[in-house]
Amino acid sequence: MSTNVLRTADGWWVLLPQALDSARAGETPFDRAVPVDTKAATTAELIADRAAVREAALSGEAGTPVADLVALSPVTTPCRVVAQMVNYRSHARDSGFTGDIPPAFFRKASGSVSGPGEAIVRPSHVKFLDYEIELGLVMGAPLPVGTVVEERDLPSYVAGLVVTNDVSARDVQLTKTQFYESKSYPTFTPTGPYLALLEPEDFAHLLDLRLRLSVNGELRQDRTLADMIVRPAQALTLLARFQTLDPGDLLLTGTPGGTALKAPPKAVEKVGALLPPAVKWKAFFKSQARNPHYLHTGDVITATISTADGRIDLGEQRTPVTDAK
Amino acid sequence: MSTNVLRTADGWWVLLPQALDSARAGETPFDRAVPVDTKAATTAELIADRAAVREAALSGEAGTPVADLVALSPVTTPCRVVAQMVNYRSHARDSGFTGDIPPAFFRKASGSVSGPGEAIVRPSHVKFLDYEIELGLVMGAPLPVGTVVEERDLPSYVAGLVVTNDVSARDVQLTKTQFYESKSYPTFTPTGPYLALLEPEDFAHLLDLRLRLSVNGELRQDRTLADMIVRPAQALTLLARFQTLDPGDLLLTGTPGGTALKAPPKAVEKVGALLPPAVKWKAFFKSQARNPHYLHTGDVITATISTADGRIDLGEQRTPVTDAK
Repeated sequence: MSTNVLRTADGWWVLLPQALDSARAGETPFDRAVPVDTKAATTAELIADRAAVREAALSGEAGTPVADLVALSPVTTPCRVVAQMVNYRSHARDSGFTGDIPPAFFRKASGSVSGPGEAIVRPSHVKFLDYEIELGLVMGAPLPVGTVVEERDLPSYVAGLVVTNDVSARDVQLTKTQFYESKSYPTFTPTGPYLALLEPEDFAHLLDLRLRLSVNGELRQDRTLADMIVRPAQALTLLARFQTLDPGDLLLTGTPGGTALKAPPKAVEKVGALLPPAVKWKAFFKSQARNPHYLHTGDVITATISTADGRIDLGEQRTPVTDAK
Repeated sequence: MSTNVLRTADGWWVLLPQALDSARAGETPFDRAVPVDTKAATTAELIADRAAVREAALSGEAGTPVADLVALSPVTTPCRVVAQMVNYRSHARDSGFTGDIPPAFFRKASGSVSGPGEAIVRPSHVKFLDYEIELGLVMGAPLPVGTVVEERDLPSYVAGLVVTNDVSARDVQLTKTQFYESKSYPTFTPTGPYLALLEPEDFAHLLDLRLRLSVNGELRQDRTLADMIVRPAQALTLLARFQTLDPGDLLLTGTPGGTALKAPPKAVEKVGALLPPAVKWKAFFKSQARNPHYLHTGDVITATISTADGRIDLGEQRTPVTDAK
């Protein structure tokens, strides 16, 4: 069973688990939190002081209602934020990929990380704002270049998990080809509420994690990790071909199908490939203007990641969408 | 006139300028260096202690021959390394771009930064290794998101300049679409030898900087900044739409024409666009196998950036190419 922590302006808190029976009965699995007595300011420092987390969990204190706490991102910045491109079969279909998909990574600015209840702010030049729920891996140990991570080694490298939303400005992303800017604006990586610190035995249950994202109560994304193409141990091995990671760094592992963006039908795409890029994108986004699924001011996104049995439960992220002033 | 510093295992050194007349006569413009008395370990700390650099330059010490020093990268890591995609008209033509090119950025891992005399190591899975000389801007002040940098403000943000080589694994770059991995392997960003700390009046001479890169003595790239599309002040403004920078961070400003990679003729490309990506790339790289300009073990790359009058001279980078063991 994982140990969930959250961060507020006052410091770190550990959540007191209720009996699994109450969770299964539909009750909130956590309702009280106890402050962690630690000097840790960063996520890396908290991970290094896991003894303090355990001590707080076992303190016997009654704790504070979680509902009274304002959660910040449990991943502190600056840190490295790396993301996997097209990593669920259902999203590959949405995106028009056929055949082999070469595993690829891109960077997001860690300045895009925001809290689990903070608004997502649409920059005024962005017309097609999209959501992507993703499981975030939080590193617990250095990953030097050249590391090969076997499945059984995963607990040595990954300290915990978080809910993230890889918010994407589709018009910027597709016209610029490099994903970096389109996914890096401030508030484009809502993270949290909980950092679930895993026990080694929890890793056997990763594929049971179910990602669900709704917009204004309408379910848009709903898949388990069984749909994932490159799984965490292999992803870290591929990333370590070129990139070192350190404790507290964040790897986003891709999003399942159900984003607002859907690739145009193959025939249309092949005709589009013959047009100059500017003409092609103008035509594509003209067609997207009729797509009702992009995000608009006033929308509210809810995102959860958990196993059905409640063993791992990363909490609910609830973020409104607003326009930049 | 800029002040050139270099870094060795022993610390920082300032170069003693010779008279410009000697430089014009073809002599090395710098031949002796004096150690800087500073606690600075990082590039950001050195930039903050510019008084110590000035003091060393004016110390009257005879100094040590520069030829006796082993220069490391004058940009210390970790730091942010951001790069501009397609930013010289001549490179845009090489790359097959027509019409408007939307300005775009990507990230490189700062673990790719290596010294100006260190070997570039080709990973064994990389078949098409290419060079890209680029002017590197080293930040001297924080650049918060939303900053608008006017030409006249540039000296407030940019502390200095370095020679960089944005080494690229073309087979990884083109098949993965995101540039991050292909340009981030260790030793894929040779940097230095000198960090040229600029005076405000030096910025008026930026467009006179001439970039030259040779492989085994054969000149491959040779352009001035007049060929640049998005110039530094505008580049920082565009980057600050989404990315904050801090002192010591590095922005690579794009490469001129002359890389080994040349885009296929338009007609071929349009037929290629109709093929599945795997088939298209297989055909493209089959044709590239006959291109003699890619890098191989034993090749030596020399790269220089300077103004004709020697006012700004970033020194000569000289890097051999080797295969990973």
